[in-house]
Amino acid sequence: MNIVGVIMGSDSDLAVMKNATEILDQFGVTYETRIVSAHRTPEHMFRYARNAAQRGLKVIIAGAGGAAHLPGMVASMTILPVIGVPIRSSNSLDGWDSILSILQMPGGVPVGTVALNGSKNAALLAVRILAASNPKLQTKLENYMENMKKEVLTRDQSIRKSAK
Amino acid sequence: MNIVGVIMGSDSDLAVMKNATEILDQFGVTYETRIVSAHRTPEHMFRYARNAAQRGLKVIIAGAGGAAHLPGMVASMTILPVIGVPIRSSNSLDGWDSILSILQMPGGVPVGTVALNGSKNAALLAVRILAASNPKLQTKLENYMENMKKEVLTRDQSIRKSAK
Amino acid sequence: MNIVGVIMGSDSDLAVMKNATEILDQFGVTYETRIVSAHRTPEHMFRYARNAAQRGLKVIIAGAGGAAHLPGMVASMTILPVIGVPIRSSNSLDGWDSILSILQMPGGVPVGTVALNGSKNAALLAVRILAASNPKLQTKLENYMENMKKEVLTRDQSIRKSAK
Amino acid sequence: MNIVGVIMGSDSDLAVMKNATEILDQFGVTYETRIVSAHRTPEHMFRYARNAAQRGLKVIIAGAGGAAHLPGMVASMTILPVIGVPIRSSNSLDGWDSILSILQMPGGVPVGTVALNGSKNAALLAVRILAASNPKLQTKLENYMENMKKEVLTRDQSIRKSAK
Amino acid sequence: MNIVGVIMGSDSDLAVMKNATEILDQFGVTYETRIVSAHRTPEHMFRYARNAAQRGLKVIIAGAGGAAHLPGMVASMTILPVIGVPIRSSNSLDGWDSILSILQMPGGVPVGTVALNGSKNAALLAVRILAASNPKLQTKLENYMENMKKEVLTRDQSIRKSAK
Amino acid sequence: MNIVGVIMGSDSDLAVMKNATEILDQFGVTYETRIVSAHRTPEHMFRYARNAAQRGLKVIIAGAGGAAHLPGMVASMTILPVIGVPIRSSNSLDGWDSILSILQMPGGVPVGTVALNGSKNAALLAVRILAASNPKLQTKLENYMENMKKEVLTRDQSIRKSAK
Amino acid sequence: MNIVGVIMGSDSDLAVMKNATEILDQFGVTYETRIVSAHRTPEHMFRYARNAAQRGLKVIIAGAGGAAHLPGMVASMTILPVIGVPIRSSNSLDGWDSILSILQMPGGVPVGTVALNGSKNAALLAVRILAASNPKLQTKLENYMENMKKEVLTRDQSIRKSAK
Amino acid sequence: MNIVGVIMGSDSDLAVMKNATEILDQFGVTYETRIVSAHRTPEHMFRYARNAAQRGLKVIIAGAGGAAHLPGMVASMTILPVIGVPIRSSNSLDGWDSILSILQMPGGVPVGTVALNGSKNAALLAVRILAASNPKLQTKLENYMENMKKEVLTRDQSIRKSAK
Repeated sequence: MNIVGVIMGSDSDLAVMKNATEILDQFGVTYETRIVSAHRTPEHMFRYARNAAQRGLKVIIAGAGGAAHLPGMVASMTILPVIGVPIRSSNSLDGWDSILSILQMPGGVPVGTVALNGSKNAALLAVRILAASNPKLQTKLENYMENMKKEVLTRDQSIRKSAK
Repeated sequence: MNIVGVIMGSDSDLAVMKNATEILDQFGVTYETRIVSAHRTPEHMFRYARNAAQRGLKVIIAGAGGAAHLPGMVASMTILPVIGVPIRSSNSLDGWDSILSILQMPGGVPVGTVALNGSKNAALLAVRILAASNPKLQTKLENYMENMKKEVLTRDQSIRKSAK
Repeated sequence: MNIVGVIMGSDSDLAVMKNATEILDQFGVTYETRIVSAHRTPEHMFRYARNAAQRGLKVIIAGAGGAAHLPGMVASMTILPVIGVPIRSSNSLDGWDSILSILQMPGGVPVGTVALNGSKNAALLAVRILAASNPKLQTKLENYMENMKKEVLTRDQSIRKSAK
Repeated sequence: MNIVGVIMGSDSDLAVMKNATEILDQFGVTYETRIVSAHRTPEHMFRYARNAAQRGLKVIIAGAGGAAHLPGMVASMTILPVIGVPIRSSNSLDGWDSILSILQMPGGVPVGTVALNGSKNAALLAVRILAASNPKLQTKLENYMENMKKEVLTRDQSIRKSAK
Repeated sequence: MNIVGVIMGSDSDLAVMKNATEILDQFGVTYETRIVSAHRTPEHMFRYARNAAQRGLKVIIAGAGGAAHLPGMVASMTILPVIGVPIRSSNSLDGWDSILSILQMPGGVPVGTVALNGSKNAALLAVRILAASNPKLQTKLENYMENMKKEVLTRDQSIRKSAK
Repeated sequence: MNIVGVIMGSDSDLAVMKNATEILDQFGVTYETRIVSAHRTPEHMFRYARNAAQRGLKVIIAGAGGAAHLPGMVASMTILPVIGVPIRSSNSLDGWDSILSILQMPGGVPVGTVALNGSKNAALLAVRILAASNPKLQTKLENYMENMKKEVLTRDQSIRKSAK
Repeated sequence: MNIVGVIMGSDSDLAVMKNATEILDQFGVTYETRIVSAHRTPEHMFRYARNAAQRGLKVIIAGAGGAAHLPGMVASMTILPVIGVPIRSSNSLDGWDSILSILQMPGGVPVGTVALNGSKNAALLAVRILAASNPKLQTKLENYMENMKKEVLTRDQSIRKSAK
Repeated sequence: MNIVGVIMGSDSDLAVMKNATEILDQFGVTYETRIVSAHRTPEHMFRYARNAAQRGLKVIIAGAGGAAHLPGMVASMTILPVIGVPIRSSNSLDGWDSILSILQMPGGVPVGTVALNGSKNAALLAVRILAASNPKLQTKLENYMENMKKEVLTRDQSIRKSAK
């Protein structure tokens, strides 16, 4: 059973959203990838959001660009945590429209927004959420952070040597 | 029968949207005023948008602030022309979020956006749209523009006198 | 007789405005394409705007970039609905100037603005406006939206398969 | 035992962050409120972040304004989900600095950001996260959303009556 | 005979534009103050711009707010130098729309733009332009700058004393 | 004797400023081109500004990018009209810094600013200023505008034909 | 002998710059407060900058608003470290112009910029610079930071108590 | 012994930060180059900042992009002057996030910020700071500025010749 729904408004968002699914694969978290357009398939989106919890999903990651309504609309029809990924799509205003139309949700309907094109962090936030009741994921997260640290320290070492 | 739907996300938007209904009253255009929240009453919004044309509406004016999804979502579920009014609500980022999340709709689902808090122009645009098949409204529009002109010319006269 | 006027400030805007005429062709809506520069041919623009309604036009789509005065000035001299298309031209400030100088019209003279380079939606909004008194266009619009939906659902299907 | 940590960079942020604790109270979620300054008490912040998970916290809500480093720095030293609240403090640039310095985290260290001053939604997102393993919270969330809907519908009713 | 035309889109701009006429009075430069609205009195504006040079005007100062088309449109119909004053009017986006729609004129039709609400400098620029062929104005400008300098030096003196 | 000074902060600005000298050549206006850096040659700039009027210059066109202090500083040391050209140099923030640091001069020291990279209009504004006391330049300006008009009308014709 | 020069473009900046002199008083650092206007007293500014080092100054703190040229121009005529304070003055664009025209200096002439209205930090940065060769100032800085920490911890304590 | 610490959040910042080390080499100032990530190696950063002064460093130059916390966090744990370099990294919002999250530090913890990608000026500011107690560096700075001046004057000469 998939526990994370990775949805996006258009298949042109796929290149960015791949960074999310790679992280989920890496952590062994099951997920589904879906095209769900707020503006072109509104009923589809409604059904998807309304049934998400019953279908066993625990977190939804929604990426969209421009006047990006997908994350907020999905959040309005589920009680699952929704993570929004603003995408700098070809028709977006350098991403400012994507960011503001996802971030500035009114009180009552929360979306947790990550950086522009920040799908990698969206997946990591999903893993952190799932880890609360999953000690194995906790260990993996600790290892992940430990590895990031080591990688930086290694690069620091190499830069110090090359500087001599 | 009402032919313009004036909808808004919250009753705090009413003060701004009044400028729209005053214009419609002035032109003798029938309308309904409704609170329809994209995020708090999504099904309600769906029904409203889906039934709008059958109920006899010809134009929808939708005002919203912050991550303003109402105009775009309504436009995705009707074939009526939708006019979006970005509102500088208390929780908006000086109105930039309201503007961008209404204006930057993806190709396929059009919203005609007016200025920040520009509900007066939203109503005038609705009247222009309705006037296409209504010669009486055309005459009224011509008079309206003629009156605007006269008002400016009168002020110009008075300023020229006072300047002497 | 042409019923939509597609005008633009410069022939360099043609590449963007083509997306509008393609939609109008697709819907069988007659139109004319014209270069009308607010700043280089002001009298020409005045005549165009003043005569538009009498010549049988029902809607005007006006695209311009930078300090984009064409849509607003045309709207001040006609009672037809005017749809403004902000264009990210080479000398525009990433399109912000184009957007703000079209969108922020003062009360009294409405312009319905679409997204940056959003000429496709400008045409679709024109079709929605014309459809009010044209049941055939209504059916075409319904089909158009149905096709958009199907296309997204097809892509969703293919993405789900490829994900397995 | 407290399961949500509500932290902020300064006691001047308290007025905004109260909206978070009111929601947590309403949902019966235990929490602690703390002043933890990234810049004035960095070691304190380190200890807080490092020990948060062991002390039983499940989610951290961090509010800060200006060059707002608290949410991101805390996220770098815990594996708990961190929700960032950008605050429009007196020395912030209308909130843009608060938003960007919380939102634009680099890949690897996620923060879920809510709207400017959106502490209410931060708490609701925390509740959604906690509800995953807590059916009682799920029911409360459904009721919360149901009540929001009813409230809007009631206002819609009253506006329709008063409009007659 | 008036040699400077001080025009503005609305009498609400008068408070800002007064700073221009005060400077012109101070320098003994004759001027006329007029309300000329690009959007509400386009023909009026055309006539004004077309006749300005013949009527003896040497410089035009044009103030406007929001989608501010007055300075640019006037510049397109005269060969006189036009100085644009962006005004932070009540319906402007903190003045950004006023600035960009005056400043970003396309190549061929120049407007010299001053700071937001900078009507004082608009008048001083007009005086500098007129001074080219008027030695008396040159002397007055030199005195003006000398006085500004003295005023600053006096304040510097007083601050140094009070600081002891 | 040169009557227009075309100055710029760096020789990397030359590509943009060429558009100004081409216009001046076209109108037969004599000019000098100089590199004058506010930050790297402040005394040089002081001397240049202080002596400009005595050397016979009538207008100064100053182009600069980033924290662009050249136009404003020159304006503070001459009574000649100064036209500022904000340049989108490689180290500028998409030109916003160039624009704001030239445009937003304090009351007392005027700079007439043109569009980003708008050196062509800077030259045309200089010609308009010089034309006040030069009927030949007036005729040339009228011809210039007439030619612009014809060019647009020709393009309009060709587009209308190709559209058939 | 004064070792810090606190200069500002106008006496209206004094309210903001007081926060700098209070810090300098607190640390026992001698300073002078001066009005030095880049645009109204350019020669004065030149002399001030050129003589600053010889007069014994070690650091210059320069505050200015709008098109803020003072810090950068002073930096171009001294080899002392210059700290720029962008001021949100009444005629500034919410401070964006002040920030960009101080921050975006070209390579070669450095200014260290602090936050909008951040004169307090400008003084603290000056103290840090002076402390390099002054162990007593180092101790004072350590105490200052220790006290900030204690103050936050005390407030944290009181908030924890009041929360019970 | 190294007296300047040149640190950056990632080795992708190295290309920009090279401009700083080149200047330091040119002035004969010893330095170390280090990768220190606020978010991936927080403890490492703490140790680095805490020990910097004792290790003999006199100034720290810290470059970072996006939600750039490195300069501010380091400044919170040292009394050395910290110079922040906002970097326009691939995942930054055209650099606005980098600038605001470094510049807008709260009162008490100063960072001197330079232009976007302005690492060259960061190094020059460091040299100015170090020159206070080092007459040899003062002479070098004077020569550096003299050379910049000469270079501009030479280019001015060559442009004047080529213009003939």
